Amino acid sequence: MSKLLIVGTVAFDAIETPFGKTDKILGGAGTFIGLAASYFNVDAAIVSVVGGDFPEKYLALLEDRNIEVSGIEVVPNGKTFFWSGRYHNDMNSRDTLATELNVLADFDPKVPANYKDAEVVMLGNLHPTIQLDVIKQMTSTPKLIILDTMNFWMDNTWDELMEVIAKVDVITINDEEARQLSGEYSLVKAAQKIIEMGPKYVVIKKGEHGALLFDHDSIFFAPALPLEEVFDPTGAGDTFAGGFAGYIASRQDISFESMKNAIIYGSNLASFCVEKFGTQRMETLTTKEVRDRLKQFKRLTQFEIELT
Amino acid sequence: MSKLLIVGTVAFDAIETPFGKTDKILGGAGTFIGLAASYFNVDAAIVSVVGGDFPEKYLALLEDRNIEVSGIEVVPNGKTFFWSGRYHNDMNSRDTLATELNVLADFDPKVPANYKDAEVVMLGNLHPTIQLDVIKQMTSTPKLIILDTMNFWMDNTWDELMEVIAKVDVITINDEEARQLSGEYSLVKAAQKIIEMGPKYVVIKKGEHGALLFDHDSIFFAPALPLEEVFDPTGAGDTFAGGFAGYIASRQDISFESMKNAIIYGSNLASFCVEKFGTQRMETLTTKEVRDRLKQFKRLTQFEIELT
Repeated sequence: MSKLLIVGTVAFDAIETPFGKTDKILGGAGTFIGLAASYFNVDAAIVSVVGGDFPEKYLALLEDRNIEVSGIEVVPNGKTFFWSGRYHNDMNSRDTLATELNVLADFDPKVPANYKDAEVVMLGNLHPTIQLDVIKQMTSTPKLIILDTMNFWMDNTWDELMEVIAKVDVITINDEEARQLSGEYSLVKAAQKIIEMGPKYVVIKKGEHGALLFDHDSIFFAPALPLEEVFDPTGAGDTFAGGFAGYIASRQDISFESMKNAIIYGSNLASFCVEKFGTQRMETLTTKEVRDRLKQFKRLTQFEIELT
Repeated sequence: MSKLLIVGTVAFDAIETPFGKTDKILGGAGTFIGLAASYFNVDAAIVSVVGGDFPEKYLALLEDRNIEVSGIEVVPNGKTFFWSGRYHNDMNSRDTLATELNVLADFDPKVPANYKDAEVVMLGNLHPTIQLDVIKQMTSTPKLIILDTMNFWMDNTWDELMEVIAKVDVITINDEEARQLSGEYSLVKAAQKIIEMGPKYVVIKKGEHGALLFDHDSIFFAPALPLEEVFDPTGAGDTFAGGFAGYIASRQDISFESMKNAIIYGSNLASFCVEKFGTQRMETLTTKEVRDRLKQFKRLTQFEIELT
C-alpha cells in the first residue's frame, strides 16, 4: 500500500450558517484532507500541531480511519488553532469572525521517519516556509507533490510561495487565486502561466461551479454535483484536495487520465462534505454512498453524440 | 425537413468591450438564434420587425443561411430596435448605454402561413404578450415550444409571463432569473418549482459556468468551453438557445437524451459566438469547426472510472 503524507492544520472551527451554528468542533485543512483521503486504500499520516486542549477522541477518530497521528505534535501548554466564520445566505461568501493561531504560530513540522519516503505528499494551505520544510525532510523524491495555497500567501510571502510552487507537481487553487497568481483573467491563460512556474498540473477549484484540470495541452472539467441544499461549505475545498490526493496515492498513477478521475472523486467527496456541519458527514461516509454518487456524476456529464 | 419558427428581435447593436468598440452592427435575439439554428438541417423562419433603416444586405445574409425572412415585417418609416452596451473587464457584467425600442414598441407578430404548422417554436426574449400571440397563431400543436425570457418580464409582466410559461415545454433562463422566478436559491429546487409552473424541461444558463438541464427527476450539465479570450459575449445566450432549438428541430426527438445533446451543441455554438464582435464569427462558421469543437467538449467532460 502506498503512503500519503499530509501536512495541514488540525483545528477547532466554530461555524454559523443560515441553518444553525456550532460550538468548537473538529476542523482544519489537514483533518478534512485526511478524512477524504482515508476513503481510499492508502496509508496516510498527518503532520500538524495541536494544543493540550485538543480532545483525545478527535485523534482517535482519525486513527480509526487508518490515519497515522504520530506526526501531530501535541503542545501540552498550548491552545489549538481556532477559526470561526459566518456564512451568508448564498453560502458563497463568509465573514471570518475569529482566527487564533495559537500553537500554529510556532509550528515546526516533523515528518515521521516512516513517512519520509511517502509516494505522495499533500501540502495543505499553510505558510510556504512550512511547506518547504516538509519537502526538505523527505529522504526520497515523492512521485507527486500536491500544493494547496491561498491569496493570503500571495499577498504576504510571494518569494517563499514561488519557491514552493517551483518544487511541486500539482497546485490546487481557486479561480480568483489563479488570476492573482498569474495576472491573467482567462483561466486558460492563467493555468498556462502557472505551469511555467513549475507545476505540471494545475487544478482550479470553482466551488459550486466545479473544478478544472490543466496540463500544458489538455483541459478536463469536473462539475460540482448540483445539490438541493448546501448545509456548511467549510472544508469542501480541502475534502476535494484530499479526495484528489487519496485517489492518486491509491492508484500510484500520475497520468492525466488518472488526474481526471482524481478530480471527479474530489468533487464527489466534497459533495458529501457540505451536507452536514464540519466533519460530521465525512465521518459516516460509506463506500456504497460514494459509488452511487459516482453514478450520479456519470449521468450528469456523460453523453453520446454521433458526429454527423 | 422539419420547420423551426423563431420569434425574436432583429436589431442594431453597438458594443464596447475591453478589446474595442463597434458602430451599429447586426444584432438581436432572433438574429443570433436564427444563425445558430441554421447550422442544423432545418427550415427556419424568423418573425420580427425592423425599420426602413435596416439594410437589405442583413436580410440577404439571413436568407443565404436558409432562414425565411418573410415574417420580418419592414416598417418603412420606422427605425430598427437599437441596443448599446459596454462590457466591464471581467466580461460578466455590462452597462446598457442605450435601448431604443423604435418599431419594436408596436410589434404585432405575424407568423407566415407556411410556418403555422412548425414542429418547433423558439420564443426569443420578448414581451410575454407577443410570445403568447405567436403561440395562438399556430394552427397545429408544435412538438416543442421553447421559451427564453428575462428578469425584466418577471418584474413588470408577471401574470402574462406565467400564462406563457404554462404553455411551453422548455424554458431557458439564467441562474439569477431561475432564482427570481422560483424564489429558491438552490438551482435544484428552483428547477423543480419551475417545472410545476408548466415546462417539462428547464435549462439554466450560467454563462462561463455552463448550463444545466433538468426534468422532473434528472440533471445534465454542459460546461462552457474554457477559452483563452472572450472577445464579445453579446448574443452568446441566444446562440446557445438557437443551437439547442436547431438541434432538436433537426432530430425531431424531444427525449431527455436528445435535450442533453442539444445543450452540448448550444454550448458548442456559443463558444464560437464570443470569439468576435456580434454575428461575425457565426457568419463564417463551418461544419468542420463545430465537429472539432465537439471533440474538445468530449475530451473536456468524458471519463472512465471503473467502480471498485
